[in-house]
Amino acid sequence: MQTPIPSQLVQETIENLRIKEIGTATIRQMVAVAQSLEEKTGQKFIHLEMGSPGLPACQVGVEAEKKALDNGVASVYPNIAGIPELKKAASRFVKAFLDVDIAPDGCIPTVGSMMGSLSSFIGVIHSRLPEKDTILFINPGFPIQPFQVDMLGFKKKTFDVYEFRGHALKEKLESYLKKGNIAGIIYSNPNNPAWICLNEDELRIIGELATQYDATVIEDLAYMGMDSRRDLGTPFMPPYQVTVANYTDNYILLISGSKIFSYAGQRIAVVAISDKLFVREFPALRERYGMARYGQAFVQSILYAFSSGVCHSAQHALAAMFAAAADGKVNFVKDTSVYAQRTKRLKEIFLKYGFKIVYDKDYDVAVSDGFFFTIGHDKYTGNELLRELLNYGVCTISLSTTGSDQQGLRACSSAIKPGDYELLEERLKVFAENHK
Amino acid sequence: MQTPIPSQLVQETIENLRIKEIGTATIRQMVAVAQSLEEKTGQKFIHLEMGSPGLPACQVGVEAEKKALDNGVASVYPNIAGIPELKKAASRFVKAFLDVDIAPDGCIPTVGSMMGSLSSFIGVIHSRLPEKDTILFINPGFPIQPFQVDMLGFKKKTFDVYEFRGHALKEKLESYLKKGNIAGIIYSNPNNPAWICLNEDELRIIGELATQYDATVIEDLAYMGMDSRRDLGTPFMPPYQVTVANYTDNYILLISGSKIFSYAGQRIAVVAISDKLFVREFPALRERYGMARYGQAFVQSILYAFSSGVCHSAQHALAAMFAAAADGKVNFVKDTSVYAQRTKRLKEIFLKYGFKIVYDKDYDVAVSDGFFFTIGHDKYTGNELLRELLNYGVCTISLSTTGSDQQGLRACSSAIKPGDYELLEERLKVFAENHK
Repeated sequence: MQTPIPSQLVQETIENLRIKEIGTATIRQMVAVAQSLEEKTGQKFIHLEMGSPGLPACQVGVEAEKKALDNGVASVYPNIAGIPELKKAASRFVKAFLDVDIAPDGCIPTVGSMMGSLSSFIGVIHSRLPEKDTILFINPGFPIQPFQVDMLGFKKKTFDVYEFRGHALKEKLESYLKKGNIAGIIYSNPNNPAWICLNEDELRIIGELATQYDATVIEDLAYMGMDSRRDLGTPFMPPYQVTVANYTDNYILLISGSKIFSYAGQRIAVVAISDKLFVREFPALRERYGMARYGQAFVQSILYAFSSGVCHSAQHALAAMFAAAADGKVNFVKDTSVYAQRTKRLKEIFLKYGFKIVYDKDYDVAVSDGFFFTIGHDKYTGNELLRELLNYGVCTISLSTTGSDQQGLRACSSAIKPGDYELLEERLKVFAENHK
Repeated sequence: MQTPIPSQLVQETIENLRIKEIGTATIRQMVAVAQSLEEKTGQKFIHLEMGSPGLPACQVGVEAEKKALDNGVASVYPNIAGIPELKKAASRFVKAFLDVDIAPDGCIPTVGSMMGSLSSFIGVIHSRLPEKDTILFINPGFPIQPFQVDMLGFKKKTFDVYEFRGHALKEKLESYLKKGNIAGIIYSNPNNPAWICLNEDELRIIGELATQYDATVIEDLAYMGMDSRRDLGTPFMPPYQVTVANYTDNYILLISGSKIFSYAGQRIAVVAISDKLFVREFPALRERYGMARYGQAFVQSILYAFSSGVCHSAQHALAAMFAAAADGKVNFVKDTSVYAQRTKRLKEIFLKYGFKIVYDKDYDVAVSDGFFFTIGHDKYTGNELLRELLNYGVCTISLSTTGSDQQGLRACSSAIKPGDYELLEERLKVFAENHK
């Protein structure tokens, strides 16, 4: 049968956009491919490529921002360490949903977790140079983070965790750490793009090795609470979001408002630094920045070099949303559970027509449904499948751009609209016919 | 006569705040010293140390932000290149007040000009490595900018322009440029901290040499329009703010909303890249970022590594304020002229009691009154004077922290309140008595 989108037109579009190899296309390039094909053909695409919030922003944040603007914050430089309201609310939020104690001092706003990771890479590396000069990535991951390390001229090591779940993680991690050059370890949990969730055993391994080998863990919690297998949404009550903070004092948490409160547009997050790391003194920091304490050097030197504080009204928004969540007035876990419901339906359709879930297990149990999922097909490499699915009006990104060694695609349920399920089913039916 | 603030108490306070050498104290440390002494003595300080807006935020911006928030921008990632409204309004604003043509493509929002300079240092250096690896600072300047260069691990050269005004600037600049290692040149105009304004002759020298030696000029226009000797506030009509853009194509302008619209709290600025530089291809950028064009690499690689776009509502605010200014509905020059009026009175009082203006001339004419001014005293070095004036309840920062070789202080009129003039007069009268 003819494909819904003519293959020749897809090829021309890719070439016109000067994409040499579709498997290396960025997310934004894939958006451009799909948009261009939609315009040319009048056919609707199933957009699984972007990881943007698909929900309206948390209204508590919007109201707090407007009130702050009315109160005149726009003219006033915000404190670089963050406004007191946000610092206190972040500390309480961390206690409510992670059951971890981090003092307000260590909760510091950043311009999204993008600046959180960029500034933390500088902090972690500059506190250790010259003997420890490398960041270790537990992949797959968000492609911009290793790019940040490259841009800064730092070194990195990476491995795909796929083959190293459970106790196998210990030996693998140790093979890097024992060389002595790893200053920091970064991963996201739940994972972007694979939606795997490291479990307590794995986090214990990471935490204990981080202590043993003195490597600072940067834990990206952009999707915290969104492991839908358990309800993580009741403040100050178990079950809690799992975190490495339970197993080491050598950690930095990145907590973003973008996904949990659908607040991506205002670029607001916090870096939460463990109390012990915050006051720990590093000779390399004293030499470079004239102040030895990690927290002080991070705020007064590194973050100050990025911006004279973070958008004042957005800080008030995040403070209000954190407080409302900890008070049980906003249930961000429930509010974002629609992504898991969508993903469940999408996965069912893909599985029905001969696809498979690539990252399908958390060691011994099935991965949860959530914001992202991974799909593969026995007849195709990831890059081939990415290309082939464009013929069927389905847009994704290749796992190969995320540091994964597996053959497959990352799909996101955030942009799914009513009617997309039926359209996907229709398209994949043709796909299955053509691939009998 | 006894000093208004006991010298012994000042000394204890400095020591308690662990400031080893008062002349190297940061602005925020000086704020802490003054606040602590105010609490201990109940005496009011004259606060000349901070360069924060002393006016309410431009209401056009506040209203635009609130409207954007009501329209749901908080959940939507802003385009990294900037929202179209802001790009177009910035381009028109540049034409209206600088009489310079820069296409909307080249007008890109940043999280304040702090991120503008930080990202531009990366862009300028990474486009030229390895042969050109150094940023040249025409000092005095904003201390954080050379710190940014240090943090990034780049090289810098600096000189105090005090002795090199007018045609002397050519030989001085060329002595650096002819070595071939200067990738970029940065200065602010009007100047923070000295409030000198480079004139057309000097900007021509800089521009022509930038072209000849291929060094990109980063012109920080944080205080544009605030040279009070001429009214620069009528859109699309001369006189215009002077700019190096008239003398080279090799430039980047930093235009911040913080001071001209008193919008510092929302952290919003634009980087305006010359049309020629925007499309210029650099082999070093292709190698490092996979894209050779400066503008593309700057937006899609460097800025992307900083943040997934700049605060969405703040972009709407700046777009509205730029548009209102170009339409003649907001006169930011008139709105900020109160700083010049304050500075005029403050300078008169300092001069009356035996102080002098350190950076007193723009080559052959007196400097304008504006946001900052410089003071010195024949009996004191800058650091000594900084310390001595604390005894009289006057807080400033030392010029030595700004890359100046001159002995004196930076003072800012932004925090002046009614009644401060009388208090300053009273305090300096005692100072003069004690220094007869």
